[in-house]
Amino acid sequence: MTPLFDRVALIGIGLIGSSLARAIRRHGLAGTVVAAARSEATRRKALDLDLAQSVYADPAEAVAGADLVVLAVPVGANAAIAEAIGPHLAKGTVVTDVGSVKLAVIRDVGPHLARGVHLVPGHPIAGTEHSGPEAGFAELFENRHCILTPPPGCDKQASERVAALWRACGSEVSFMEANYHDKVLAITSHLPHLIAYTIVGTASHLEEEERKEVVRFSAGGFRDFTRIAASDPVMWRDVFLNNRDAVLEMLQRFTEDLTALQRAIRWGEGNVLQEQFTKTRAIRRSIVEAGQAGRFDPREPEKG
Amino acid sequence: MTPLFDRVALIGIGLIGSSLARAIRRHGLAGTVVAAARSEATRRKALDLDLAQSVYADPAEAVAGADLVVLAVPVGANAAIAEAIGPHLAKGTVVTDVGSVKLAVIRDVGPHLARGVHLVPGHPIAGTEHSGPEAGFAELFENRHCILTPPPGCDKQASERVAALWRACGSEVSFMEANYHDKVLAITSHLPHLIAYTIVGTASHLEEEERKEVVRFSAGGFRDFTRIAASDPVMWRDVFLNNRDAVLEMLQRFTEDLTALQRAIRWGEGNVLQEQFTKTRAIRRSIVEAGQAGRFDPREPEKG
Repeated sequence: MTPLFDRVALIGIGLIGSSLARAIRRHGLAGTVVAAARSEATRRKALDLDLAQSVYADPAEAVAGADLVVLAVPVGANAAIAEAIGPHLAKGTVVTDVGSVKLAVIRDVGPHLARGVHLVPGHPIAGTEHSGPEAGFAELFENRHCILTPPPGCDKQASERVAALWRACGSEVSFMEANYHDKVLAITSHLPHLIAYTIVGTASHLEEEERKEVVRFSAGGFRDFTRIAASDPVMWRDVFLNNRDAVLEMLQRFTEDLTALQRAIRWGEGNVLQEQFTKTRAIRRSIVEAGQAGRFDPREPEKG
Repeated sequence: MTPLFDRVALIGIGLIGSSLARAIRRHGLAGTVVAAARSEATRRKALDLDLAQSVYADPAEAVAGADLVVLAVPVGANAAIAEAIGPHLAKGTVVTDVGSVKLAVIRDVGPHLARGVHLVPGHPIAGTEHSGPEAGFAELFENRHCILTPPPGCDKQASERVAALWRACGSEVSFMEANYHDKVLAITSHLPHLIAYTIVGTASHLEEEERKEVVRFSAGGFRDFTRIAASDPVMWRDVFLNNRDAVLEMLQRFTEDLTALQRAIRWGEGNVLQEQFTKTRAIRRSIVEAGQAGRFDPREPEKG
């Protein structure tokens, strides 16, 4: 395959950045890959793992000569990085990112890019609860969705090149408005993470109080929650701070729905509970039938 | 292995009952297994699948001559069944169950058993989101916890025989007070299921409203939730109705903790979020180190 890009600069080389570096190499998608990382230890690891041909402490140095820049840092770091690299981007450079929030990227990065530099925000829906350059692997994006949210007026060719990169990594690419992306992800990803973080905390308080093992007897549901709640704290802090309005709106809707079920439990309204549970079971079945669950979630399920 | 019991009567032959029937046969744990099921179709299936030597519509007939009776029905059905079978249980018979709530079993079943009939409530923490006799499999209980909650004064030999049954099915047996079981399971299993049911419902409302696919782009967290929310509606209705106090208490604690995080998001208090997320990550690590996650959850995790 002809490389899609001459020189890719990865700003951040953690789980996602390092997985992308590996996938780019495996599929021959770029002539050169370079990386920027703040910490000396991470830079050394990136070289040891042969993830990049050269590494930089300063993102502005890393982007010199790059025709693709990938921001792969917690979304709260984007603004400062964009300000630093903006003046060093050649005309025609494509800038993309991998963050879980998309309006904030347009808000934080867009203003620092000169005319002729193309911003194509992206979100590969893939990952693990592990962090760091050693946690990545080339297959991470295979059979996953990747959502691109090019802002209005975005260069068509630029967004197609970013789409081609993700398709070559094995992902199914969809285009979406940034605003809609943030709303959908607020309910399907951000809120589940917030809830998982909360419930694991609530359970651990009970454990302290009872001075007994609560977590040891975790049933199916809770074990899933502890895994979700082990995701990177800084990345998720930034997601919530940068998708505040959508998360708060979905949280409000969720709380209303939960309160209705709580009331049904208190008043012993079994029919309300059964009806709701039957509905959600049907939703799961429609997902399975659409092939989503089978494709993404081949794991054996558990009961509590 | 010498059979642990001469004649086991399974009242209910769904996912759990049929898995137990298969495990009993595989490991030679009983001389005879018979089953009772309300529906004609289920009884026929149980015979077709060779899960029981004979099947009965009437639980009272099924328990005749049994030295072990296993209630494997939604917990709301226990009281009526206990009333029906009580007069037909021979002295020395052991009665156990597989429900996710344990105080309610003692409350509903205990009064119907004559002196000399031994009630040993049990909860195998295992299952899938599938239901019915064809969904079971003999390995379901292997490397899972099974919690027994014999009431005060319970016959020691009876509870040891039930423990031996579950150990022979591959489970690790723990003894616990019914009250403590219900509290622990409320936070580690019942509440996660309630939340999963809620959030899948909330997302489906958004989908209707937006007339677009929300669920298609589900990230890791949400897919886990839809799986949990596909569990049997009647079984879960009965769990919530029969563990009301513990569920409402844990729900209250959860809501307080969630509200604190909601407030931190609204006011942009990143340090509060990061601190909480870092704590829960440590809890997950302690579970992994204790070997629980590895043993129960070998599946590859995902990010949102």
